[in-house]
Amino acid sequence: MAIFDMLPVKFSLFTSSILNTSTVVAITVFVTLLCACIVIGHLLEENRWANESITALLLGLVSGGVVLLVSGGKSSRILVFNEELFFIYLLPPIIFNAGFQVKKKQFFKNFSTILLFGIIGTIISFCLISLGAFLLFKRLGLTSLGIKDYLVVHIEHMKIVFAAAIGAIFSATDSVCTLQVLNQEETPFLYSVVFGEGVVNDATSIVLFNAVQSLDFSDIDVFTALKLLGTFLYLFCTSTALGITVGLLSAFGIKTLYFGRHSTDREVAIMMLMAYLSYMVAELLSLSGILTVFFCGIVMSHYTWHNVTESSRVTTKHSFATLSFIAETFIFLYVGMDALDIDQWKESSASAETSLAVSATLFALVLIGRAAFVYPLANISNCIKRRDGDKIELRKQFIIWWAGLMRGAVTIALSYNQFSSSETSSSTVYPLLITSTIIVVLFSTVLVYNFHNSTRTCILEHAYVMHFWKQVCGSVTKPLINAVMLRNAKPTTSDATDFASLDDLGLLFLENGGSNDASGNQEAPRSSRFRLLMRYPTYTVHHLWRRFDDRFMRPVFGGRGFVPVVPGSPTGAADDQTS
Amino acid sequence: MAIFDMLPVKFSLFTSSILNTSTVVAITVFVTLLCACIVIGHLLEENRWANESITALLLGLVSGGVVLLVSGGKSSRILVFNEELFFIYLLPPIIFNAGFQVKKKQFFKNFSTILLFGIIGTIISFCLISLGAFLLFKRLGLTSLGIKDYLVVHIEHMKIVFAAAIGAIFSATDSVCTLQVLNQEETPFLYSVVFGEGVVNDATSIVLFNAVQSLDFSDIDVFTALKLLGTFLYLFCTSTALGITVGLLSAFGIKTLYFGRHSTDREVAIMMLMAYLSYMVAELLSLSGILTVFFCGIVMSHYTWHNVTESSRVTTKHSFATLSFIAETFIFLYVGMDALDIDQWKESSASAETSLAVSATLFALVLIGRAAFVYPLANISNCIKRRDGDKIELRKQFIIWWAGLMRGAVTIALSYNQFSSSETSSSTVYPLLITSTIIVVLFSTVLVYNFHNSTRTCILEHAYVMHFWKQVCGSVTKPLINAVMLRNAKPTTSDATDFASLDDLGLLFLENGGSNDASGNQEAPRSSRFRLLMRYPTYTVHHLWRRFDDRFMRPVFGGRGFVPVVPGSPTGAADDQTS
Repeated sequence: MAIFDMLPVKFSLFTSSILNTSTVVAITVFVTLLCACIVIGHLLEENRWANESITALLLGLVSGGVVLLVSGGKSSRILVFNEELFFIYLLPPIIFNAGFQVKKKQFFKNFSTILLFGIIGTIISFCLISLGAFLLFKRLGLTSLGIKDYLVVHIEHMKIVFAAAIGAIFSATDSVCTLQVLNQEETPFLYSVVFGEGVVNDATSIVLFNAVQSLDFSDIDVFTALKLLGTFLYLFCTSTALGITVGLLSAFGIKTLYFGRHSTDREVAIMMLMAYLSYMVAELLSLSGILTVFFCGIVMSHYTWHNVTESSRVTTKHSFATLSFIAETFIFLYVGMDALDIDQWKESSASAETSLAVSATLFALVLIGRAAFVYPLANISNCIKRRDGDKIELRKQFIIWWAGLMRGAVTIALSYNQFSSSETSSSTVYPLLITSTIIVVLFSTVLVYNFHNSTRTCILEHAYVMHFWKQVCGSVTKPLINAVMLRNAKPTTSDATDFASLDDLGLLFLENGGSNDASGNQEAPRSSRFRLLMRYPTYTVHHLWRRFDDRFMRPVFGGRGFVPVVPGSPTGAADDQTS
Repeated sequence: MAIFDMLPVKFSLFTSSILNTSTVVAITVFVTLLCACIVIGHLLEENRWANESITALLLGLVSGGVVLLVSGGKSSRILVFNEELFFIYLLPPIIFNAGFQVKKKQFFKNFSTILLFGIIGTIISFCLISLGAFLLFKRLGLTSLGIKDYLVVHIEHMKIVFAAAIGAIFSATDSVCTLQVLNQEETPFLYSVVFGEGVVNDATSIVLFNAVQSLDFSDIDVFTALKLLGTFLYLFCTSTALGITVGLLSAFGIKTLYFGRHSTDREVAIMMLMAYLSYMVAELLSLSGILTVFFCGIVMSHYTWHNVTESSRVTTKHSFATLSFIAETFIFLYVGMDALDIDQWKESSASAETSLAVSATLFALVLIGRAAFVYPLANISNCIKRRDGDKIELRKQFIIWWAGLMRGAVTIALSYNQFSSSETSSSTVYPLLITSTIIVVLFSTVLVYNFHNSTRTCILEHAYVMHFWKQVCGSVTKPLINAVMLRNAKPTTSDATDFASLDDLGLLFLENGGSNDASGNQEAPRSSRFRLLMRYPTYTVHHLWRRFDDRFMRPVFGGRGFVPVVPGSPTGAADDQTS
């Protein structure tokens, strides 16, 4: 058969041999691990210390370790961390689903707070972390870390750029992680604020980093600040407008084209494709894809979703959630597996102490940077708000601070992209920054998540229940404490199972409706004329929007109640949950 | 700012700049075109000359042309044809969905015919096409096509290898294309035979091509043939067993773990992941992934699907169909766009006449190769079958021959993989073969599809209706002809709208039930003891299987009627269609 060796014919004809074996192995391992995560996560559902994400993180670490052992300490990676995979395939479904399933009324009610945190807060945090990182670099001495081939003025400038990059990477709350800590059903207010902030600060971060690129730090004046604000407003408005446009287009298209003869597969396909298109177009135009796809999700759930058949509704609702769920689990698995990236650890010639010191400093900076804006801004927001119930009390501020601390896959992806350039292999500061990022991410994810869970039932429980005790009459307290104890039992048992929503429950008792709007109905129970007047501003905006929506938007784009019910299509639970 | 140029810091921090612009552009263009295909395909639904696939093919051609013009004739490709994309992401959902939605009873009733066509038929076709290609190469003279750097004995051998590769590539029916031509609802028998053949011959092709690789053609004896048969049986059985095992595992897992506390997202996620896992494991073990994932789909629809919640059922049913639909449209778009691949056309220095001659010869070989096994094998099958109604009449044989002629994306992918090796750029026979493949695919897809559609209503209609006229009484004929005329109106109007199923209808009238089993119920109406006896063999196997299934399988793995209905979950249409 030696004759064959000389012939220029490849003998790899069929699928089994066409595919690159390493790709097939990587996919098989990841899919198997994903299945394992789901099963284990399900088995540990009762356990307050773990969920799918933590399971995925730990399973990723373990498999990374196994691969490391098998390969004889040479490599721990099956898939190379790939920003494209992350930003093109994994992030869009997660953010879209979040927009699709978000409680719109709650979200827009807190919109001013969200914008305040997302814009001003991110800027404050960015400045503090950048400053801290700059001082850290000064202290460590960048030169000792391998970069000594540049003039002093360059090193000075480089420290600023590094510091600003670190500031931009670490000041952004990871919206994917927020989904893991806060539950929309349990704590609608906190969820909408922290998650909304995570979405909005994507746009802020783009502006900030572009600013760092093009600005001369020795020459900042009011004009520059105004220009930056203008850029931000442009980015924010165009991204939002793009998302809304694509959403409305899908609603209009489906209403006009498919109304008479519904075809479920086409409807679902076009919803998926349009949503994805909005993200890609935003990326193409250098806008904030996250913001765009989030608003596209909101518009789609408000209009498009009501124009499709009942089976399309069920399918879209669950398939978007499933895709998002798989993507999230995949990300955590990936991060876990990537943490043992031996190449980065080897390249980072800095000692373990330096690594830990840098990580600790970064995490401390994140803690301080976040505290520095959450508490002041929450108090400013409180001053503006007229109604007592709308105010953000200290414990809610604490949770906003805490829940937004997590740094996740977005941080790692950005850090890799920023610090893993092959052309500067001589520099050892890059691997150091990557390994420090990984440590911060692992630490913040596992600790914040578990501390959050445990404090909810152990430490905070006491203080909060004590506090609450004074507020509501004694007769309600006992069952509520029991409910708090059992808080992990079922999320659908509504607000009463969480300490934070005890507060909402308090609002409910005291004011007879307000923040509790799971049904999304227009007519909230109005307790008295006086209270109606007190919450006038929000109410007016909402009222005007409803009138505009009913008169102009829904007749064109469809929506709840504006699309004749298809005969025989059952309406019910599915209908209520998403609107 | 010149100072920045010298710094080893990349300024691409955020998503908009992280992503490779060409990737973003390619994805945006493809998603936009997919949306356009769906909308146009929907608008043309009444038109018998087009559907989503043909639209996608033409739209792909047009966009390829536009890109060609814009780039000034340099490139017509946005995405480079990538076998991995095709075999890893696009093919599995299509085949899985086909298995998931296939009418199992119909499929297994015709299983012997399917195996006959899929194994013996493919071998016959392979031999004929290989022989024809060999003679073609001899006639054209391979040396004149650029390969003259080898010894005569090498060229002789090369011709054999080339011919065998061509035989293997062109003898396999493209199961994706079959889905486009035949409709399961309209023509269940023909669909199951032609599609089933396409699934089974994947395994046959692997064996055949491996045989070509390792065999010495001068020394073929009975022992070699037996060895090949053994290899095929091994491949077929292990692939099937793997698919069934994974399917049963998912059924058992979901039944055991999730039964009490249903979680839709997890259920759907685990079904998707397990199905995909079966394909990837098969590829990893060098088995037939297509066969594996197809049987996994069958088992999942029989057991797993009944173990999940009602909303999971609706979601899986439609989301699998949607993913498959998107993948199919994408493939046709891709093939259309790829047809104008200017590089291949340029490299192929052969004249247009040679290209066309090769293409025409190849297509003629496909026609002959298929005819050479469909008609004889159908007649052999008829001899074995006892019942008149089970026999494959001449017109059905014609459709089996015709519908299996289409060659599609699988053919192109294999051809690219086989003939586009960079190391042999001196050879011009490779580009020639690729361009010829593209011509054959375009020609066969557009022509077969349209001829099939038009003949169904124009040419064949006359002959078939005439033939049918003699069979059923005159009073039924008129509405039936009308139904034939309107056959494109709605597929759900069941068998009466298609000439082929007029036949099934005939069976229905004549024998009161048999091939018409849309409901999948156990008790087919039995017209008389005599006929029951006549169809004894099939009935016995089915009966034994049902007993085994009910007694041993369903209690363990769940299934229709063996899982307590979840209170409040509506059962109905969705339940009936997939089983």
